[in-house]
Amino acid sequence: TKQYDICLLPGDGIGPEIIAEGVKVLDAVGAKYDTRFDCKESLIGGAAIDAVGDPLPAATLDAAKAADAVLLAAVGGPKWDTTDPAAPRPEAGLLGIRKGLGLYTNLRPVQIFDALAGASTLKPEVIEGVDLMIVRELTGGLYFGKRERFYDEEGAGTDGARGQRAYDTLEYREYEVERIARQAFEAARKRRGKVTSVDKANVLETSRMWREIVHRIGEQEYPDVQIEDLLVDNTAMQLINRPADFDVVVTENMFGDILSDEAAQITGSLGMLASASLGDSTALYEPSHGSAPDIAGKGIANPLAQILSVEMMLRYSFGMNEAANDIRRAVTEVLDEGWRTGDLKDAATPADKVVGCAGMGDLVVSHL
Amino acid sequence: TKQYDICLLPGDGIGPEIIAEGVKVLDAVGAKYDTRFDCKESLIGGAAIDAVGDPLPAATLDAAKAADAVLLAAVGGPKWDTTDPAAPRPEAGLLGIRKGLGLYTNLRPVQIFDALAGASTLKPEVIEGVDLMIVRELTGGLYFGKRERFYDEEGAGTDGARGQRAYDTLEYREYEVERIARQAFEAARKRRGKVTSVDKANVLETSRMWREIVHRIGEQEYPDVQIEDLLVDNTAMQLINRPADFDVVVTENMFGDILSDEAAQITGSLGMLASASLGDSTALYEPSHGSAPDIAGKGIANPLAQILSVEMMLRYSFGMNEAANDIRRAVTEVLDEGWRTGDLKDAATPADKVVGCAGMGDLVVSHL
Ligand SMILES: CC(C)[C@H](C(=O)O)[C@@H](O)C(=O)O
Ligand SMILES: CC(C)[C@H](C(=O)O)[C@@H](O)C(=O)O
Repeated sequence: TKQYDICLLPGDGIGPEIIAEGVKVLDAVGAKYDTRFDCKESLIGGAAIDAVGDPLPAATLDAAKAADAVLLAAVGGPKWDTTDPAAPRPEAGLLGIRKGLGLYTNLRPVQIFDALAGASTLKPEVIEGVDLMIVRELTGGLYFGKRERFYDEEGAGTDGARGQRAYDTLEYREYEVERIARQAFEAARKRRGKVTSVDKANVLETSRMWREIVHRIGEQEYPDVQIEDLLVDNTAMQLINRPADFDVVVTENMFGDILSDEAAQITGSLGMLASASLGDSTALYEPSHGSAPDIAGKGIANPLAQILSVEMMLRYSFGMNEAANDIRRAVTEVLDEGWRTGDLKDAATPADKVVGCAGMGDLVVSHL
Repeated sequence: TKQYDICLLPGDGIGPEIIAEGVKVLDAVGAKYDTRFDCKESLIGGAAIDAVGDPLPAATLDAAKAADAVLLAAVGGPKWDTTDPAAPRPEAGLLGIRKGLGLYTNLRPVQIFDALAGASTLKPEVIEGVDLMIVRELTGGLYFGKRERFYDEEGAGTDGARGQRAYDTLEYREYEVERIARQAFEAARKRRGKVTSVDKANVLETSRMWREIVHRIGEQEYPDVQIEDLLVDNTAMQLINRPADFDVVVTENMFGDILSDEAAQITGSLGMLASASLGDSTALYEPSHGSAPDIAGKGIANPLAQILSVEMMLRYSFGMNEAANDIRRAVTEVLDEGWRTGDLKDAATPADKVVGCAGMGDLVVSHL
């Protein structure tokens, strides 16, 4: 019997409900493949702020580091929303664990389940064949640069104006771009062999450096992979115009945040998309959606993105590809049979095919 | 007879062809409304680099300042693409004239012409009723903050790594946010009374300041206008999910660049969208699309966005609303009659309804 330690981070909103279904599936897979997953919960996000005043308690980071993989649900909610620079924010827990574990690579695959293709607001012929992977740099850029707000008494600066000033810094170093570029090229090799590198090189210096480094790595180390540059504004357009043309899309942290959500929405089923955050040691897996505080505690949340983040964990952390394929097949079958959570149902869904969070988890387990 | 001086900036690629059609329409409107528009061309962008080595010659900025309005076509092209920080870039001409004229407000209306609704990759029921206005801050943020690239010999910084480093700075001052917020609220008052303010307040300090200031201005000065906050990643999703729900969307420079192009693409007809850049004196009008170097010089470019930027000029700079309405009506009629440029045609367009750039300009004039 193999054994792995899993650090569970339920977080906020629907987090605790959906992570329970992820664990259910993990246990079922473990039983089938003679593997024991020992899961232990730790605090993160708003829940951690409420309990101990810190969105990322040291004990949580330690537990995550010690584990073989981390399964996160979601953080945040209006309860903790504030513009006070000094107040603790749930998101700081997420950013802190990304940085603390060195999770510089965020993989966000975007695919369409046939049974749910109708949910897209895009025309069927446009989304047909969409299968792309956003590779988002996750520990650099505006998210982690120096930031400050202050009151400028003097009116320093060219315009001589007094008042508040604030800045954030978008910074990258050579090695940060090199390593994320390699991740993108590696991913492309296992896929259709094409990398679209997204930047704003006609304006930003970080983008010009990004573009040079991506090309150098590509030409020297991955001559078999095709590289294309696309400006971020144009990418925002082309994802809507011709989403099926993209294979791997690599970009810096903030652009990746925006474009990965845009790409996710193209499927029409955000509740189906998972992501993997990889670094040099422990990796973290989470749904691409948020904590959905409006439906928290009602038992109606969709656990499938969480379950598919377990699929990614098996694949990327444990090399259990067969088990991972099982999960994907089980989810596909459940959907093909017409089962839907509230967010996935449409006018044609019969009432008796709508299930809750736990019900959906049970259905997936029954198909494993 | 009224008289206005117009500074024409044809720029690069299809710029010269389309601006000629804009001028044709301007002259026709002038004749009808007893107004003389004296147009004078100046150099900008790649054309200016080639002629005098500078994407924004001093003479151009002077001519723009002296004019009553500026009509720009497009700048840029692969000929001048470079990642060399020291090389002149066409885009620097555009950024320079925005800064030089103090054009801090960029208005990008997104509407759908009925005749072209089918061009959208979104489902008809999703784009029905789309009528939104992106108000983009245009002279601040990452576009104008301090930026630098250097080789770090020492490996300074926490990670001790040597190599290249680059940074860009996202900076805002209180008055910059106040004035763009007012522009958004004013626009909303003339429309459906709702402002969506887009930021990334869960991560960026500039966003937290932005959010506070927008709310203060809104509550104190525009209590009749509804304010909603939306994170930039969520906005990228909602523009695809429910574009018709947006009225005015206000955001900082880089987010506005990305989201306005995304919103434009939703219509499926980028060749139909114009924008106005306003400051405290001379305003500038331009198509939302680029210089399309691949079709330059062939006489097949679509001049309608340029013509609609003339419409915006008449409206915002000269208060000639009747004349502006004329242009919009003329364009609508031409499209309703089935005339199309190459970019607008589809499988159902008869070959004899496809016209070139000048042909389209003539058709619009004939409907004025
Ligand atoms: C919650 C937030 C800080 C986070 C991000 O912006 O990275 C989220 O949007 C994401 O994409 O994982
Ligand atoms: C050409 C480029 C610098 C410009 C910008 O990013 O502002 C363009 O994309 C635009 O949106 O007007």
